[in-house]
Amino acid sequence: MAQDNLGAVLYKTKDLRLEQTPIPVIEDDEVLLRMDCVGICGSDVHFWQNGSCGNFVVRAPMIMGHEASGVVAKLGAKVKNLKVGDRVAIEPGKPCRYCEFCKTGRYHLCPEMQFCAAPPTHGNLVRYYKHPGDFCYKLPDHVSMEEGALLEPLSVGIHACRRGGVTGGDVVLVLGAGPIGLVTLLAAKAMGASKVLITDILQARLDVAKELGADFTLLVSRDSQEADLVRKVHELLGGHPNISFDASGAESTVRLALLATKSGGVAVLVGMGSAELKVPLAGAVAREVDIRGIFRYVNEYPIALAMVASGKVNVRPLVTHHFGLEQSLEAYEVARRGLGIKVMIHVQPRDANNTHKFTK
Amino acid sequence: MAQDNLGAVLYKTKDLRLEQTPIPVIEDDEVLLRMDCVGICGSDVHFWQNGSCGNFVVRAPMIMGHEASGVVAKLGAKVKNLKVGDRVAIEPGKPCRYCEFCKTGRYHLCPEMQFCAAPPTHGNLVRYYKHPGDFCYKLPDHVSMEEGALLEPLSVGIHACRRGGVTGGDVVLVLGAGPIGLVTLLAAKAMGASKVLITDILQARLDVAKELGADFTLLVSRDSQEADLVRKVHELLGGHPNISFDASGAESTVRLALLATKSGGVAVLVGMGSAELKVPLAGAVAREVDIRGIFRYVNEYPIALAMVASGKVNVRPLVTHHFGLEQSLEAYEVARRGLGIKVMIHVQPRDANNTHKFTK
Amino acid sequence: MAQDNLGAVLYKTKDLRLEQTPIPVIEDDEVLLRMDCVGICGSDVHFWQNGSCGNFVVRAPMIMGHEASGVVAKLGAKVKNLKVGDRVAIEPGKPCRYCEFCKTGRYHLCPEMQFCAAPPTHGNLVRYYKHPGDFCYKLPDHVSMEEGALLEPLSVGIHACRRGGVTGGDVVLVLGAGPIGLVTLLAAKAMGASKVLITDILQARLDVAKELGADFTLLVSRDSQEADLVRKVHELLGGHPNISFDASGAESTVRLALLATKSGGVAVLVGMGSAELKVPLAGAVAREVDIRGIFRYVNEYPIALAMVASGKVNVRPLVTHHFGLEQSLEAYEVARRGLGIKVMIHVQPRDANNTHKFTK
Amino acid sequence: MAQDNLGAVLYKTKDLRLEQTPIPVIEDDEVLLRMDCVGICGSDVHFWQNGSCGNFVVRAPMIMGHEASGVVAKLGAKVKNLKVGDRVAIEPGKPCRYCEFCKTGRYHLCPEMQFCAAPPTHGNLVRYYKHPGDFCYKLPDHVSMEEGALLEPLSVGIHACRRGGVTGGDVVLVLGAGPIGLVTLLAAKAMGASKVLITDILQARLDVAKELGADFTLLVSRDSQEADLVRKVHELLGGHPNISFDASGAESTVRLALLATKSGGVAVLVGMGSAELKVPLAGAVAREVDIRGIFRYVNEYPIALAMVASGKVNVRPLVTHHFGLEQSLEAYEVARRGLGIKVMIHVQPRDANNTHKFTK
Ligand SMILES: NC(=O)c1ccc[n+]([C@@H]2O[C@H](COP(=O)([O-])OP(=O)(O)OC[C@H]3O[C@@H](n4cnc5c(N)ncnc54)[C@H](O)[C@@H]3O)[C@@H](O)[C@H]2O)c1
Ligand SMILES: NC(=O)c1ccc[n+]([C@@H]2O[C@H](COP(=O)([O-])OP(=O)(O)OC[C@H]3O[C@@H](n4cnc5c(N)ncnc54)[C@H](O)[C@@H]3O)[C@@H](O)[C@H]2O)c1
Ligand SMILES: NC(=O)c1ccc[n+]([C@@H]2O[C@H](COP(=O)([O-])OP(=O)(O)OC[C@H]3O[C@@H](n4cnc5c(N)ncnc54)[C@H](O)[C@@H]3O)[C@@H](O)[C@H]2O)c1
Ligand SMILES: NC(=O)c1ccc[n+]([C@@H]2O[C@H](COP(=O)([O-])OP(=O)(O)OC[C@H]3O[C@@H](n4cnc5c(N)ncnc54)[C@H](O)[C@@H]3O)[C@@H](O)[C@H]2O)c1
Ligand SMILES: [Zn+2]
Ligand SMILES: [Zn+2]
Ligand SMILES: [Zn+2]
Ligand SMILES: [Zn+2]
Repeated sequence: MAQDNLGAVLYKTKDLRLEQTPIPVIEDDEVLLRMDCVGICGSDVHFWQNGSCGNFVVRAPMIMGHEASGVVAKLGAKVKNLKVGDRVAIEPGKPCRYCEFCKTGRYHLCPEMQFCAAPPTHGNLVRYYKHPGDFCYKLPDHVSMEEGALLEPLSVGIHACRRGGVTGGDVVLVLGAGPIGLVTLLAAKAMGASKVLITDILQARLDVAKELGADFTLLVSRDSQEADLVRKVHELLGGHPNISFDASGAESTVRLALLATKSGGVAVLVGMGSAELKVPLAGAVAREVDIRGIFRYVNEYPIALAMVASGKVNVRPLVTHHFGLEQSLEAYEVARRGLGIKVMIHVQPRDANNTHKFTK
Repeated sequence: MAQDNLGAVLYKTKDLRLEQTPIPVIEDDEVLLRMDCVGICGSDVHFWQNGSCGNFVVRAPMIMGHEASGVVAKLGAKVKNLKVGDRVAIEPGKPCRYCEFCKTGRYHLCPEMQFCAAPPTHGNLVRYYKHPGDFCYKLPDHVSMEEGALLEPLSVGIHACRRGGVTGGDVVLVLGAGPIGLVTLLAAKAMGASKVLITDILQARLDVAKELGADFTLLVSRDSQEADLVRKVHELLGGHPNISFDASGAESTVRLALLATKSGGVAVLVGMGSAELKVPLAGAVAREVDIRGIFRYVNEYPIALAMVASGKVNVRPLVTHHFGLEQSLEAYEVARRGLGIKVMIHVQPRDANNTHKFTK
Repeated sequence: MAQDNLGAVLYKTKDLRLEQTPIPVIEDDEVLLRMDCVGICGSDVHFWQNGSCGNFVVRAPMIMGHEASGVVAKLGAKVKNLKVGDRVAIEPGKPCRYCEFCKTGRYHLCPEMQFCAAPPTHGNLVRYYKHPGDFCYKLPDHVSMEEGALLEPLSVGIHACRRGGVTGGDVVLVLGAGPIGLVTLLAAKAMGASKVLITDILQARLDVAKELGADFTLLVSRDSQEADLVRKVHELLGGHPNISFDASGAESTVRLALLATKSGGVAVLVGMGSAELKVPLAGAVAREVDIRGIFRYVNEYPIALAMVASGKVNVRPLVTHHFGLEQSLEAYEVARRGLGIKVMIHVQPRDANNTHKFTK
Repeated sequence: MAQDNLGAVLYKTKDLRLEQTPIPVIEDDEVLLRMDCVGICGSDVHFWQNGSCGNFVVRAPMIMGHEASGVVAKLGAKVKNLKVGDRVAIEPGKPCRYCEFCKTGRYHLCPEMQFCAAPPTHGNLVRYYKHPGDFCYKLPDHVSMEEGALLEPLSVGIHACRRGGVTGGDVVLVLGAGPIGLVTLLAAKAMGASKVLITDILQARLDVAKELGADFTLLVSRDSQEADLVRKVHELLGGHPNISFDASGAESTVRLALLATKSGGVAVLVGMGSAELKVPLAGAVAREVDIRGIFRYVNEYPIALAMVASGKVNVRPLVTHHFGLEQSLEAYEVARRGLGIKVMIHVQPRDANNTHKFTK
């Protein structure tokens, strides 16, 4: 096997380096993957710029990357769902499999979760990476490696919609049209929402949302009056949304989610902002608007793959930039500047493992 | 107001007559409707041919019709959601509003339900008909009166899918491609199912299913071997369906639903066949395949309307025949002979109340 | 029928009067009740002291009282579940029966709800009062009129537990041991909770909680450190509660509910405090602790009655004071001073309608 | 460590032998247990008498036993929840931890489940037995080893009640008062059922049920008329049960569960009888009575332990017979003859590991 194992390693705040790393040795339940596509996520940029994200702090050099796809290069003795050469999407967490959370089907809450590029666990923006076989999902031929990588953010959107209980006929409000707001929009439409209104403070993002199927968009400005926004949401939707999603993390969007949602509805909090927020809880209590946070995803990768493979969801327009592994720093810089939506890093030459050229 | 109130009245088995009936007088919470479209359902034909259906027996002359739309002609004093001239879809049941079922949101199980054309309650295949205002749903301009009438069977399909818990990524089996199997297919796709396999013993119905979006079809014959069918279903779907629907009512399809469904999945029974069936229950118990019957619909009309109005579901191809009210007997005869899918009776001239001509 | 219809009428802030009122005339679906027991609730005192409570403002003289039981004196033509002389508990709300909330089984959220002693709707602290028959629940002989009145607060506790999903083996935290905290404790134990820890700032209330079956109590002081409290809760319970209830409405207890609850658990907010609260939402999001407010109750009266009638729940120790109707002002004064738990007003002589003397 | 590892080994139909077996060698995630109590279950007797049970066939000598408790003798390197000397209840299944069922919290449906004394997997009626540490639950001092063993059948009852959704105020019907019917009764009462009616064809079993808290009992005879039974059930309960449990497996009890349950309720099938049954499905469909089978338990051991440890459930009266390991054949013979309820085999001297003598 090749000895080259170049990877993008974060040493500390603003110190991201491309360097050789050891090729990992697999366990019986693992596969070795030759990486292909790795997207950049907001949290990656946050780690790079701040050396931490939420409770996670970078204390030792860590390989970046967790939105990824690759090709199976080697199989552990116990892996039966895959074979060498399989193109796979990688669900980036490895739970303990023994705790109460793992056994009740909520492994994403496992306290011993090892999650790619959440310190101290290495990620997969590197040539060779090992992973538990059961968290690798074989892609059908017609699904591209880019789409495989995009299953990660899509799974967040699906998890949000499943937690919110989105189903046929729902009227949905999504606050924030960044990558996460957009995948929430896609998932909500695919799960039957009949009207989705999405907001942002940037018109460019709303334009993408429109292209992706938003029924209504609302451009918000930082000094919009809260009561006005509630009224506008209700006007545009012809009523109250029964499910709202905060996909921005700002106090103002969390507040709007609580205020605008129909009595008896659900406000799903996806955004992760300040630790503390001042919110109009009493109204949510009196109107029984449930508040549900979401953390990543759990058992949603197969659903995301089924949605993409069946054509129910088209995630391709999310990718706005492409870079090679060697250009990773440049790629991160583009992501940092918030140009476009999703920046994709190609560890292998573009389309090397795609049956058709990836075009949006 | 016109004195003509011609209606299709069932006297007894095989004795359906067109005759004048009194124009009803409305209560405060009711509206008088000038009827427009009324579809024919399998149960209508059953009443006509047998004088009964399930526990319901025709003992006095009864106006037929329950899949219907109309235009508001007169308003009761307490009706606030409508105005004269509104085009509406009619949810055909009137529950008591006082019992435990009505108060827990399951009014379709209300023991005092008065349901159109379920004896002794009159239906709405007649010029003027009165109905509680809150069970009339105003149609947006772009939704046709035919679509309004089709919300009735569509609601059955949606109720079936909601009871089955259909959501994103589901793999679905529908047994029977009559009107009910087809609306179940439409609802399942709209609610996120990524693969739907539908079966029938008639190729013509499978062809319609294909047109409506079925991912796979399977032509079954009366002497198909059970084990073979299970295997074929799994082969076509690339695995077990996690939700199956019996939409035929035959013992063989109920059995197949139980046998083919994934462990931990759901078999929804929509079909209403013999009172007693011999079924492989032990396997369903040991594999925890839940069995859920469905009865009509409850709170699904607004969802059905949202789905049609938003374009998520296209029910128009279901209509294969059109007749005027005066041709009702001819229309019933066509329905009885099982030609086509849905026979639509026009109480008013076609497209009288549509903004665009109704074409499939 | 007697012409005496003395009632306790609130004119405005701090202006509660005993005076004659007209005997109401019943509708077909109503009964006339000769009132027996009426408890005093925190909100009653709040209206009396402040002329308002939440969004409800007293603008015209209003009869007080909503935790009540009575005896059927007269029957409307359509009432079939009752007969004259029946002893009943009164569920104090009258929803519209027509709106989306009423039809989906969430009538407590009906925007047209008429709720006893929520302005402008009159309550039932009066000799004769009329009410929809279906919201009156016949008491078995062995259930006292006092218990009938106590079904009201108990229903709040049951609704809270049903919203929280309390079931066998649950570990529960209740914050606040006022009447509402105590009924939540009772309901949680009856629904299978294996450990309940209840907190308060008053030892006297914790003593009552202990008597009612609390497994653990924790005396809190206004200057307790948040982190200490979280730790103490976990120590006492031997782990994290999976369901927490705020039954105080203070910012500090809402915060504690969010912080102490197990990942993936539920924090139920029953307390109604300030309109706005500063809370550590990000942690609840990342740990998927659901936040669910509750508003009164819905379909819980029959459950409350079943629990009391079967002996699963003993609400009798909650009553600490008794007064006659003529002593209503005195009774309100005792309630205002927060002495004891539940103050009961007897519109008829004590035990007039009980088979056994009411003793705690 | 002692070399004696006497166990009860089933060779084939009616050929159960006591003989030495090898002491197992533990894996890193396992513990070695010195067994204490092992109850006999109906399926054990079935295997002994028939060499098979359902799809499981004895093809090689197999150690019996799966309702058990023991003491930790040795710890695998990765086991952190236990220490040597801990008294534990043993959840007898070992799922794969990798499949879809394991990851969605339904590991009891894992197709690779290795379940004690389900061929070809050995059970634990033997001196030394090894088991995954996370499926061993430490017993508090006051919980006896007998109670530890009884968590197994209790977990079946709890699983049945959780699947049925038993909660406060429920009216419950249990058909069959064998060990499984009785634990279902215990679980239902502990989870809030206000009325439980239990039936059997043997008065002796109904007497035990009465002692365990049944509100009503009904003695059935093989020639009871179905319609009569339905009527009697409704009379005794003063209405329809909203949840019914078949705990016998007979066609007649499954039928009764479907017929007697309230519209919109649930019929839980626990009994495992003939592969095929003739049942009145159409009525269950039209009344939306859900049918849910159950298979063993999943994540219910901790709940069972919490219920027993908190005193909510008293399982002690279930044990009617005691034998030493050396008397295993005698014990099986008593179980076969259906005398008493639960036969307990003591691998160690009685009360060797109990703080208090075990007395019912
Ligand atoms: N809960 C989880 O598991 C999870 C997973 C991934 C991301 N996240 C969080 O989701 C959020 C969104 O992620 P992203 O990658 O899309 O981030 P992003 O920053 O690209 O997108 C946020 C969007 O919100 C918009 N916005 C800002 N203020 C707004 C306002 N007042 N009204 C409307 N829109 C406003 C921004 O313009 C931006 O387009 C972040 O807080 C992130 O931390 C959570
Ligand atoms: N539960 C409810 O509330 C509800 C409401 C409406 C209709 N229904 C019932 O749903 C069923 C379907 O209604 P419909 O109007 O579509 O009836 P239909 O008779 O038009 O359709 C049934 C279809 O099943 C097909 N079929 C027959 N045997 C089959 C087999 N072995 N395998 C596969 N397909 C087979 C038939 O060819 C036919 O196309 C009926 O039993 C009806 O009574 C129930
Ligand atoms: N959501 C609803 O439908 C509903 C219905 C009834 C009551 N309520 C609300 O429930 C709350 C409780 O009602 P109640 O009648 O029992 O009121 P209460 O005032 O008698 O009881 C509140 C209890 O909380 C205690 N408390 C105060 N601060 C505390 C702290 N920091 N930690 C622990 N305990 C503390 C008080 O000492 C008191 O015993 C009120 O806010 C009321 O408005 C809500
Ligand atoms: N689903 C599961 O995971 C699971 C687990 C354990 C046991 N089981 C099954 O549960 C059933 C009960 O187990 P058990 O150990 O209590 O068995 P059991 O044989 O001791 O008890 C069955 C009881 O039903 C009674 N009975 C028979 N006919 C009856 C009738 N017509 N009406 C009322 N009662 C009648 C019998 O007298 C007996 O008391 C068995 O079928 C067993 O296979 C299922
Ligand atoms: Zn874990
Ligand atoms: Zn009703
Ligand atoms: Zn209403
Ligand atoms: Zn498994």
